[in-house]
Amino acid sequence: MFAKVLIANRGEIALRVLRACRELGIRTAVVYSTADADSAAVRLADQAVLIGPAASRRSYLNAAAIVEAARLVGAEAVHPGYGFLSEDADFAEICADNGLTFIGPPPEVMSALADKSSARELMRRAGLPLPPGSVAPVPTAEQAARVAAEVGYPVIVKAAAGGGGRGMTVVHTPAELPRAYARTRAAAQVAFGDDRVYVERYLTDARHVEVQVLCDGHGNGVHLGTRDCSVQRRHQKLVEEAPAPALSAGALEAISACALRGALAVGFTGAGTVEFLVDAEERFHFLEINCRIQVEHPVTEMITGIDLVHEQLHIAAGVPLRWRQEEIVPHGVAIECRVNVEDPDRDFAPTPGRLERFLPPGGPFTRVDTHGRPGYLIGPHYDSLLAKVAVWAPDRELALNRLERALEEFDIAGPGIRTTIPFVRRVLDDAGFRKGRYTTGLVERLLAVPTDPPHRRTR
Amino acid sequence: MFAKVLIANRGEIALRVLRACRELGIRTAVVYSTADADSAAVRLADQAVLIGPAASRRSYLNAAAIVEAARLVGAEAVHPGYGFLSEDADFAEICADNGLTFIGPPPEVMSALADKSSARELMRRAGLPLPPGSVAPVPTAEQAARVAAEVGYPVIVKAAAGGGGRGMTVVHTPAELPRAYARTRAAAQVAFGDDRVYVERYLTDARHVEVQVLCDGHGNGVHLGTRDCSVQRRHQKLVEEAPAPALSAGALEAISACALRGALAVGFTGAGTVEFLVDAEERFHFLEINCRIQVEHPVTEMITGIDLVHEQLHIAAGVPLRWRQEEIVPHGVAIECRVNVEDPDRDFAPTPGRLERFLPPGGPFTRVDTHGRPGYLIGPHYDSLLAKVAVWAPDRELALNRLERALEEFDIAGPGIRTTIPFVRRVLDDAGFRKGRYTTGLVERLLAVPTDPPHRRTR
Repeated sequence: MFAKVLIANRGEIALRVLRACRELGIRTAVVYSTADADSAAVRLADQAVLIGPAASRRSYLNAAAIVEAARLVGAEAVHPGYGFLSEDADFAEICADNGLTFIGPPPEVMSALADKSSARELMRRAGLPLPPGSVAPVPTAEQAARVAAEVGYPVIVKAAAGGGGRGMTVVHTPAELPRAYARTRAAAQVAFGDDRVYVERYLTDARHVEVQVLCDGHGNGVHLGTRDCSVQRRHQKLVEEAPAPALSAGALEAISACALRGALAVGFTGAGTVEFLVDAEERFHFLEINCRIQVEHPVTEMITGIDLVHEQLHIAAGVPLRWRQEEIVPHGVAIECRVNVEDPDRDFAPTPGRLERFLPPGGPFTRVDTHGRPGYLIGPHYDSLLAKVAVWAPDRELALNRLERALEEFDIAGPGIRTTIPFVRRVLDDAGFRKGRYTTGLVERLLAVPTDPPHRRTR
Repeated sequence: MFAKVLIANRGEIALRVLRACRELGIRTAVVYSTADADSAAVRLADQAVLIGPAASRRSYLNAAAIVEAARLVGAEAVHPGYGFLSEDADFAEICADNGLTFIGPPPEVMSALADKSSARELMRRAGLPLPPGSVAPVPTAEQAARVAAEVGYPVIVKAAAGGGGRGMTVVHTPAELPRAYARTRAAAQVAFGDDRVYVERYLTDARHVEVQVLCDGHGNGVHLGTRDCSVQRRHQKLVEEAPAPALSAGALEAISACALRGALAVGFTGAGTVEFLVDAEERFHFLEINCRIQVEHPVTEMITGIDLVHEQLHIAAGVPLRWRQEEIVPHGVAIECRVNVEDPDRDFAPTPGRLERFLPPGGPFTRVDTHGRPGYLIGPHYDSLLAKVAVWAPDRELALNRLERALEEFDIAGPGIRTTIPFVRRVLDDAGFRKGRYTTGLVERLLAVPTDPPHRRTR
C-alpha cells in the first residue's frame, strides 16, 4: 500500500479521501487554493500544500502545480476526487510520466471513455444497448436533422467531449434543431476545446439508473448494484438511492451484468459508474461511463458495507480485487440528498456566505459527509455542494422517513445562506417519489407547481 | 402505533428516542428541567414540558410530575430512556395506573429483576450458570465470611437492590471483609433504601459480555447477539463492541441462547440486556438483566440493521415481534466509545462548562449520538456523557482504525472542558485490546502506567 497519497481536490470529497487514507494507515497531503486555506481537509491532513489562487484554472486544474506538490511532499499517488482533473486523461498521463500513481483508470481508457462517441462505439461492440441515434459525431446540421427525423423527436444534441451534465441541448421540434445544433457545437468548443456533437433520441420519463463497478488491473471485476439518480435539475443530481426502486429483480440484474461487461471490455480499472436510461418497459440504454468516484457513492457503500475509496486505493496499489461477486450482497435501502448552498426559490442561484450555525444530523443509520463547520466561509469560487446526508434502512419507506427526520435536524444558518433542503423535502413528500415511481421529469414537474408556503411539519 | 409518546429523559438518549418516534410518525413530547431548557431534545420535540428544577429528584426522578406532563400533552406512552426512572417498577406501575403505557417490561418483571438476589434465583431456575456465591442475601458479616471462604477470594459484596455498577465492593482478603460488608450495606441503605447484600466470587481477568434480547408480550423472543463491554472504569463502560471478540462461535451462540432462555423464563418484554462474566476458558456466569435500552445499544443496531428503539415502541404498542431469529444475521463489527466530559488525568472528574467548539466526526460507517452543539452549556447536574461515537466495518481491525480516525476528527473545546477521548485512544492503542484479548482489568492496568505525553499521531 502507498505510504503517502496526495489529495488533489477540495470540499467534502477531499475529506472523504482523507478519511479513507487515514483508515488504511496512509499519510495524507492535500493541495489547496488560497480560498481554502482554512478548509476541513487542510486542517486534518498530515500535510497541506498551497498550489495557487482561488480560480480553479490556477489551482485545482493546474496539473503542473499538483504534480509539483506531490513531488515536494514525496507522495506516491494522487487521488483526484471528482470534478476538476479527475477525468482528465492528460493529467493521468502527466502523473504517470512523473512516477506518480494516478488513482483511476489508465489514461488511454479515460480518453476512450471521455469521448462520448468513442465510448458509445466501444459499448455497442461490447453488446450494450444504446439509445437510438448516431454513434459517430454528426458533422453538419443537415445530418443532425436526418438522424433526428429517423429516431423521432425529442432528441438531445450532446457534445462528444461533454460529461457531468454539461454540453447537452434537448430539442423538441425540427424547427429548433439547426440553432440548437450550432449552439451546442459552439458551447462545446468553448467548454471542452472540441466541437464534435452527436444526436440521440431524448428519452422523456425515463429513469437514470447507474451501476457501480470495481475492476482491478488483473482482469477481475465486480458490480455493486444499482443507484437511481433520476432526481435531477438540469442534469445535476439532487437525490440518489440504492438500489434503484420499482425495477424488477431481473432488470436490476441485467443492467448490472451489462455494466460490468462494458467496463471489463474496455479494460477499465478502479471504481467506475456505468450510466443508463431506463424506460417504463424496463428497456435500458447506455449513456456513459464515469471514471471517477461519484458524489453519490455513499449509498452504494451503505447497502454493501464496502468502502469504495478503500477499494480505489487497493486497486491503484496493484492489489487484486478483494471481493468476489457472490460476496457482495446488498442489504436494505440507502438514500442520499445533496445539501447545496443555493436558493431553490431563485432558480437555485448559489448563496455564498459565512455559516453562523452548522450542526449536522446524527443518530442511527445516518451518514453526513461535509466540510462545513460553524464559522466556515463559503466562497463563490467552487460548486455549491456543502453536505451530503445519507441514510440506510431495511426498507425504502423507513429510509425515506429517516432522511426526512435527518433533514429536519440539520441546523444551517448564516446571513444570506439558503440550502436545497426545503426543495429536497418537497421531493421526499412527492407521492410518486414515495412510491419509487419517478423519472428524470420529477424535478421540472415540481418546479412547475407554485411553491407551497415553506414546508412545515405539523407540530 | 402510539400517536404521541412522552420522553422522560434528557441528553443524547432523549434525542435518540425522539429520532425513533419521528421516523415512525409518532408525535413527541419531552420533559425537561430548568437546566435543560435549551437542550437538543427540547428544541426538536413537538412539545416540551418543564417538570422541575435541575436536581434530578425534583425533575427527572419526579414520577408525579412526569405522569402529569403526559396527561397534559395527551401522550399515550412514556419512554424512560436509561437511568433515572427507567428501571423503577413503581414508576412503571404508576404509569399503568394512569392509563399510560410504560415502554419497558411489566412492573412485576422489573421488580423481580431489579432485586439481584431474586434475579439470580430466577436465572438459576432457568438453568443459567451463576458465579459461585450466595444466591440469597447474607444477613450477617459472619455468614458473608463463610460464603467468601467457600468460593475463595477475591469476592465482591453487592447490594441486592444495586445496579448500573453501583453498590459493589471488591474484597481481596478475609481481613477486609467485615468492614467492606458493613460499608456496602450502609451505602446500599442510603442509595437504594435497601441494605440487603450478597457475596460472590469476584472474577478477575474476566470479560463482560452481554446479550441484547427483544421479547414481545406474546411469548416470542429473539437475541441480537453479544456485546463486549469489558472496558470499564469503576464499573462504568467506556468502550463497547459487537460482537464480543476472541470468543469461539460456539461460546457466542451458547451465551446468546442462554440469555434468551433466561429472559423468556421470567416473562420479559421489550428490549433487555442479559449480562455475563466470561472467563479465559469461556465459562460464563450470569450477572444481571437490564430492563432498559442500554447506552451501548448502537453497536448492536449497526451489526444487525435493526433499530432497537423502534422495536421497543412496536412491542410496547402490542405488535408481535417483527423478526424471527433466523432473519437476524449480524454483519461485521461495530465499536462505540463514550465521550464523557471528564478529565482522565484528574481521576475522571467531571469538567462542566460551555462548549465553544463542537463538531462531531462524520463520513463512512460513522455514527454519532450527541446532544452537544456549539455554545451548549454542560451543567454539573447530570452524568457527563456528551457523545457516543460508533463505527462499523467488515472486520475488527478496520473498525478500530475507523474509530481512531473518527476520534481524531472530533473537535470539542471550551474553557476547562476535557473529554475521555485521549484515554479512549490509549485503549484503542493497547496491544491486547487490538487483538481483542482484554478483560475488565484493562482500564486499571492502563491507569497504573504513568500517562504518556498527550497522544499525538505522527504527522
